[in-house]
Amino acid sequence: MEEKRLERQQVFAGKILDVYKDTVSLPNGNVATREVVEHAGAVAVLAIDEQGQIVMVRQYRYPMQEVMLEIPAGKLEANEEPLECAKRELEEETGYIAANWEKIFSLYTSPGFANEVIHIFLARDLQYVGCNPDDDEFVEAFKASVEVTIEDINSGMIRDAKTVSAVLWWKSQLS
Amino acid sequence: MEEKRLERQQVFAGKILDVYKDTVSLPNGNVATREVVEHAGAVAVLAIDEQGQIVMVRQYRYPMQEVMLEIPAGKLEANEEPLECAKRELEEETGYIAANWEKIFSLYTSPGFANEVIHIFLARDLQYVGCNPDDDEFVEAFKASVEVTIEDINSGMIRDAKTVSAVLWWKSQLS
Repeated sequence: MEEKRLERQQVFAGKILDVYKDTVSLPNGNVATREVVEHAGAVAVLAIDEQGQIVMVRQYRYPMQEVMLEIPAGKLEANEEPLECAKRELEEETGYIAANWEKIFSLYTSPGFANEVIHIFLARDLQYVGCNPDDDEFVEAFKASVEVTIEDINSGMIRDAKTVSAVLWWKSQLS
Repeated sequence: MEEKRLERQQVFAGKILDVYKDTVSLPNGNVATREVVEHAGAVAVLAIDEQGQIVMVRQYRYPMQEVMLEIPAGKLEANEEPLECAKRELEEETGYIAANWEKIFSLYTSPGFANEVIHIFLARDLQYVGCNPDDDEFVEAFKASVEVTIEDINSGMIRDAKTVSAVLWWKSQLS
């Protein structure tokens, strides 16, 4: 089933993404074009407090032109370990640190056109140490019960794929 | 929290995606750059047969350089209704048609850098009418139980975000 790269043309070199137009050979020998976005990858954190509430963030997502409700997340920096990135992003965006970390799974968000991988962690034994966001980052943290979060997924209020995956996974662990 | 577009520069015009470098004003008045991938959107289908098995597809995803296990899915064509697209993709990729369709939810796959929305449908009362894939499309359909599919999610064999979301949602409906 493999597609072999014959040629690669970089069409954009950005800060957070690079875009390529590749020529590939298909399994039947035909030649096709593939448009590919390369991204450094990201992490997301399902942080659960002692009452079983989920730590969520509200932020404006420019590509969607919408304020979205998501679990805390962020892009991997160069050579950064996913777990270190997860700890950094949880504290930066919500003011929480956690004593107990577990990897849940890694997801491919848009495998048809992008190579983004998002590593999702479960964080427990939370402690609030205070928020210290970047000047140009506008993120509001809040907590919500699993039940309300699932209602928000079913009503379409929460539409972020990593958040839906992580919260429904957590629900499956509880039941 | 809104970011207002000050300037837009198109840096790539492709067949399946357009890429822009925008200049925006932040809520604090500062100016920032946003790299944005625009995509026409897609659909995915959670098709469940009379035995409760899930119709899955195996295909090579060039951006990930991997054969992946996913629910059937495909890109929206110009002016295509999501439900029509879902019916077309299910039949093209798996040979099944369905008498019973319900919208589950729409997901934003990569809201940090792309505007892709994926509309996910539940399809039941399936009938096999035979597969007729495009010449240049290499997709193998198979069926798997919900239990095996959940095991594959937990083991990391299934990593596709839309598939993880849809299958865990279905599990939450069953329990």
